Amino acid sequence: MDVFIEPIGRLMNEFSKLPGVGMKTAQRYAYKVIAMPESEARAFAEAIINVKRKVRFCKTCGNFTEDDVCAICRTRDKSTICVVKEPKDVIALEKLHEYRGVYHVLHGVIDPMNGVTPNDIRIKELLQRVGEGGVKEVIMATNPDVEGEATAMYIAKLLKPLGITVTRISRGVPIGSELEYADEATLARALMERKQI
Amino acid sequence: MDVFIEPIGRLMNEFSKLPGVGMKTAQRYAYKVIAMPESEARAFAEAIINVKRKVRFCKTCGNFTEDDVCAICRTRDKSTICVVKEPKDVIALEKLHEYRGVYHVLHGVIDPMNGVTPNDIRIKELLQRVGEGGVKEVIMATNPDVEGEATAMYIAKLLKPLGITVTRISRGVPIGSELEYADEATLARALMERKQI
Repeated sequence: MDVFIEPIGRLMNEFSKLPGVGMKTAQRYAYKVIAMPESEARAFAEAIINVKRKVRFCKTCGNFTEDDVCAICRTRDKSTICVVKEPKDVIALEKLHEYRGVYHVLHGVIDPMNGVTPNDIRIKELLQRVGEGGVKEVIMATNPDVEGEATAMYIAKLLKPLGITVTRISRGVPIGSELEYADEATLARALMERKQI
Repeated sequence: MDVFIEPIGRLMNEFSKLPGVGMKTAQRYAYKVIAMPESEARAFAEAIINVKRKVRFCKTCGNFTEDDVCAICRTRDKSTICVVKEPKDVIALEKLHEYRGVYHVLHGVIDPMNGVTPNDIRIKELLQRVGEGGVKEVIMATNPDVEGEATAMYIAKLLKPLGITVTRISRGVPIGSELEYADEATLARALMERKQI
C-alpha cells in the first residue's frame, strides 16, 4: 500500500471489504471513483449512507423494507407463507413473478456445528404468525443443503400439529447449491412441484 | 430492479458503475453494506468523498497527489523521466522499488481512430520539462500496443533533436512464460531484439 497516496489507499481499503474484492480490484474501483465527476461520487457516497439509514427489517416477515411492515406483507395473500434463509432468497423468488403469498425470513438456518440453534433464527416469530390464524400453507424454501433440510424438517415438525399444510420446494433444485444461484426455470419448477412433508 | 426496494436498488445502481460490476455483483456489494455497522458504512462513504476532495494531479508529472507537486517529483532524481500512459502505470513501476527517477503521466496515448491527437495528451508539458534542462534520459514506458508504440515513436522524434537519450522498455516474451504460448508478434519481436550473452 505504500505506493499509494493516503486517500487512495484508504478508499482501496474500504473497497476491499466488499465480498470477493482484492487489492487489484479495489485499485480499479478507486481509480474509477477518482475519474468520476464530483456529483457522481457524491451520489455514490450518499447511496451508501442512505441504504444504512433507510433499510430495516419488516417486523412481520423480517425482509428488508423502508417501512414498519414491508409492501409484500401489506398487499399479498397471507394464507401462504414461504420460509427462506435470507433476504436475497426473497429476491430470487420474487424475480419469478409467480408467487403470490408472503414470506418469512429466518435470517439463518439451524447449524449446531457453528453454534446456531433454533432460538437464534426467527422460528418463534413464524410460530407466532401462524398462531394468529388464517395461514393454510407454509412453504419451506430453505436451501437444499444439510442445514437447510434440517431447518425445514425442524420447522415442519413444529407446524404440523397446528393443522397447517407444510410443503417443501421440490428437489429440482440441485443439491448442495444455493437458492440465490439457481436458474429461474429450475427455481420455478421447484416452487411448482413443492411436496407435502 | 422492481424487486428491490428503492434504497437498495439505488445503491446497486451506483455499484454497477464500477468497472466489471454487473447487477448480481452490485447486489452482493449492496447487501454487504447493509450488513456493515453504521460506522463502517460511514467510513466507506467518507473515503469516497475524501478521495474526490483530496486527490489531484501533480502539476509537474501529472500523477495523483494530495499536494501541488507529488512526493516523487519533490524527492527523486530528475535527470531521468519515465513516460507512462496512466497513473496506474506509475503504481506498477513503483511496486518494483527499483526505479529512482521521476515520471511523466500522459493521461492517454495518441489514437487518431478515437480522436486523440498529440495535443490531447500531456506532450507539450513533457517538452517544457525537458526544455528546463537537467534531463539526461527519457524512458518511454507506454504500453506495447499499436497506440503505445506510435506515441513512444512520436515523442522520441520530438526529443532526440534536443540531445536527450530516449529509451524504450524492452518488449519480448514474458519471464516465466512458455515460447509455445507467446503470440507471434511478441515472439517475432523477441527474436528481432535478441541480445548477445
